Amino acid sequence: MNQSSTICAISTAPGQGAVALIRVSGEKAIDICETLFVAANKKKLTEQESGKTILGNIFSDKENIDEVLLSLFRAPHSYTGENVIEIACHGSIYIQHAIIQLLIQKGAVAAQAGEFTMRAFLNHKIDLSQAEGIADLISSQSSAAHRTALNQLKGGISNKLHALRNMLVQFISLVELELDFSEEDVEFADRGKLKLLVEEIYTEVQRLKNSFSLGNAIKHGIPTAIIGKPNTGKSTLLNYLLQEERAIVSEIPGTTRDSIEDIAIIHGIAFRFIDTAGIRETNDSIEILGIERSFEKIHKASIILLMVDAEDCLSEINMMVNAIRSHLESHQHLVLLINKTDQFNEIELQTKFGIIDFNGIHGRENMLLISAKNGIHIDQLETRLLAIIHAEQWENSDVIITNSRHFEALTRSSEALEKVLEGMQQKLSGDFLAQDIRQVLHYIGEITGAITNDEILGAIFSKFCIGK
Amino acid sequence: MNQSSTICAISTAPGQGAVALIRVSGEKAIDICETLFVAANKKKLTEQESGKTILGNIFSDKENIDEVLLSLFRAPHSYTGENVIEIACHGSIYIQHAIIQLLIQKGAVAAQAGEFTMRAFLNHKIDLSQAEGIADLISSQSSAAHRTALNQLKGGISNKLHALRNMLVQFISLVELELDFSEEDVEFADRGKLKLLVEEIYTEVQRLKNSFSLGNAIKHGIPTAIIGKPNTGKSTLLNYLLQEERAIVSEIPGTTRDSIEDIAIIHGIAFRFIDTAGIRETNDSIEILGIERSFEKIHKASIILLMVDAEDCLSEINMMVNAIRSHLESHQHLVLLINKTDQFNEIELQTKFGIIDFNGIHGRENMLLISAKNGIHIDQLETRLLAIIHAEQWENSDVIITNSRHFEALTRSSEALEKVLEGMQQKLSGDFLAQDIRQVLHYIGEITGAITNDEILGAIFSKFCIGK
Repeated sequence: MNQSSTICAISTAPGQGAVALIRVSGEKAIDICETLFVAANKKKLTEQESGKTILGNIFSDKENIDEVLLSLFRAPHSYTGENVIEIACHGSIYIQHAIIQLLIQKGAVAAQAGEFTMRAFLNHKIDLSQAEGIADLISSQSSAAHRTALNQLKGGISNKLHALRNMLVQFISLVELELDFSEEDVEFADRGKLKLLVEEIYTEVQRLKNSFSLGNAIKHGIPTAIIGKPNTGKSTLLNYLLQEERAIVSEIPGTTRDSIEDIAIIHGIAFRFIDTAGIRETNDSIEILGIERSFEKIHKASIILLMVDAEDCLSEINMMVNAIRSHLESHQHLVLLINKTDQFNEIELQTKFGIIDFNGIHGRENMLLISAKNGIHIDQLETRLLAIIHAEQWENSDVIITNSRHFEALTRSSEALEKVLEGMQQKLSGDFLAQDIRQVLHYIGEITGAITNDEILGAIFSKFCIGK
Repeated sequence: MNQSSTICAISTAPGQGAVALIRVSGEKAIDICETLFVAANKKKLTEQESGKTILGNIFSDKENIDEVLLSLFRAPHSYTGENVIEIACHGSIYIQHAIIQLLIQKGAVAAQAGEFTMRAFLNHKIDLSQAEGIADLISSQSSAAHRTALNQLKGGISNKLHALRNMLVQFISLVELELDFSEEDVEFADRGKLKLLVEEIYTEVQRLKNSFSLGNAIKHGIPTAIIGKPNTGKSTLLNYLLQEERAIVSEIPGTTRDSIEDIAIIHGIAFRFIDTAGIRETNDSIEILGIERSFEKIHKASIILLMVDAEDCLSEINMMVNAIRSHLESHQHLVLLINKTDQFNEIELQTKFGIIDFNGIHGRENMLLISAKNGIHIDQLETRLLAIIHAEQWENSDVIITNSRHFEALTRSSEALEKVLEGMQQKLSGDFLAQDIRQVLHYIGEITGAITNDEILGAIFSKFCIGK
């Protein structure tokens, strides 16, 4: 946490590009760059205007390393709140390396992961949840994850929590005022109003806490399982869903699909297909007696797509649905996909499936007649998937928790709030109440960074990339 | 070559980083960005100062895509000479893609490889050899390659050729003046002075042309072969030489060593080891009768390192040296490495090798007593390698040709100059002379881009990366 040093790092993606950006931050950023940069306009950096782009050359002794565009930002008007220099150089690996080496030679030190953003936090440019939003933003791969991260960066969560915390502070100040007058037995804080206030806060904390399962799903993808007997077309469906996204991802050179192999992005929301490698390789079956592995998959999924062949007999389908239903938890959703419907005409399908109710699963939304091979009614499936996760709901909601650290702090806040409510019910004295409320303040402060320590900061920023 | 469009591309290395840079260039660059950018200072882009960094947000309809730093450069004060906008955004792949998509939606087109630099050339911001210098600069991996590329970018070659061409133009104008007065049989151009001038130009063109073998070696690495019987330590030496460089390259995250597997950089100069995969795998031997493959290697190399074991008998070493010598061409250099000297003491070595002259190879500089395993005297080998390619010479020389297109044009110029000299010897009439000189002007003009066509430009810029 040594902030006295001046740090430097390559901030653009590693490797060769047309341009690379090198960032320098710290008290001596300008002095250090002065020793290696000569502006085309001959002005010294100390005389240059803040926020202006300056053309010039980088020299190592007398050797010209590169012609660059340098941007200067004087403290506190910069990303970190310190003096910041950004050098846009030609993107050869040699040049990137040479400039970093030169900066280090002149007194800068190589930045740790996330150190620029940590300095921004320590200099009060952003709060902690905003800093975490930046990391999430950079790694977001779907528009939903991007949107929630950007919202977090913009202070969406901070503002909400800040408002909550202010309400609590207001509360505790009244209660603590009572303590000063304890011998007089006065109640400045109207217990009725206080109860309403605490309940309001509790509702809000609960709401935020509950948004985590959705937020987490948005960030990491909605866990979805496709199960069914062999050769019902599970891998065909998966490939169909993945294919649309592949087209988008492959437009960006250098992106690898390896790490998102099994994530299909449907209308901006990532669905993570569980153990699909298994699906594609082994075509493992789910028979009535069940295979351990299929139920394991079901256990991890929020959405289970059970795929059957339109040729299968109705009683068998019914038994499979019942078998899975018996394993479902309340938060899980089952969708029955009748595949290979291209083999039948409308009347045949209507006759066979039109009036059947598989253990209450019947209906356009829970039983879909599709053809994975020909992409028939896959749009209905996508609509259903989006409906299940209430896509329309969170699109309008601005604050969603996506961070497990926040979830933990909210959970503890929630527990502490319950204790406060309980205490009020039991008419606990003000000093006990105040103690419980202080706990709530502490946990919420952990999220915004009002309450923090080196260990927490280290854990948060070490997950950032270098140069951020 | 449609310059009326406004182009856009990601200019930083592909993939995820802390920051990415998106470049937009063209008449409508400012108008297009106006539709998607809202500055924090609320000013419109048209009102913003050129060369200033502007904080703001990118929007797609009403959805916030990212908070960015935008730099605006008004024509002609920009890289391309057109209106240029540079957007520094958060480096997530999603955001990079979303902004490019948005720019295209608003009327920009995706830039072709090298299109920004091509526009800079077409708008006379740089000449053609400078443009080529930029491509070389970005791909340079050693300090020598970097230095020659930067020198080319800075106009080193252009200036030299421009001066040459001016001298020629001066010449041809005098000769053509004679043609106007042909009936009067006057000679404005003093044939004696002209001959001196053409010879001077010829010398300069020859010098530049001859610098190509060095320039090419600097750019692609000096072709070097290590040959010798099995188990003499060839691979040990290679690994030792590669190891030093590996340390440098691996400091930059994301760089792959695959493509430079066999290039060792010694004091900033790249040495390319020929067919070293073979060396390491097969330990192929060179015996007196020779193996085709070893001689093939020798054929391609500028430097041949013949490695023998200090235990080998002197007559065998002598025969090997003679066998290789008989295959050497004049530009090739042979260095004899007596390896495994750690097995002997100083006196033993002195006694065995001190007075031997292997076909004139004796001497500190051509016969080195080393230990590849322990790194003994490898510094002497490095000094010798650098001396062979006259490292000190080109370090002081400012103009080196590294581009095969330039080499070809210089070769043709050289031929045309020879024709001019020949013509003068044969006292050809002014109109024939003028014709030959026009040829020279043409070929030199091809290098600087004074003479060009779409095909040449297409071939040059298609080798650039996208975003440059």
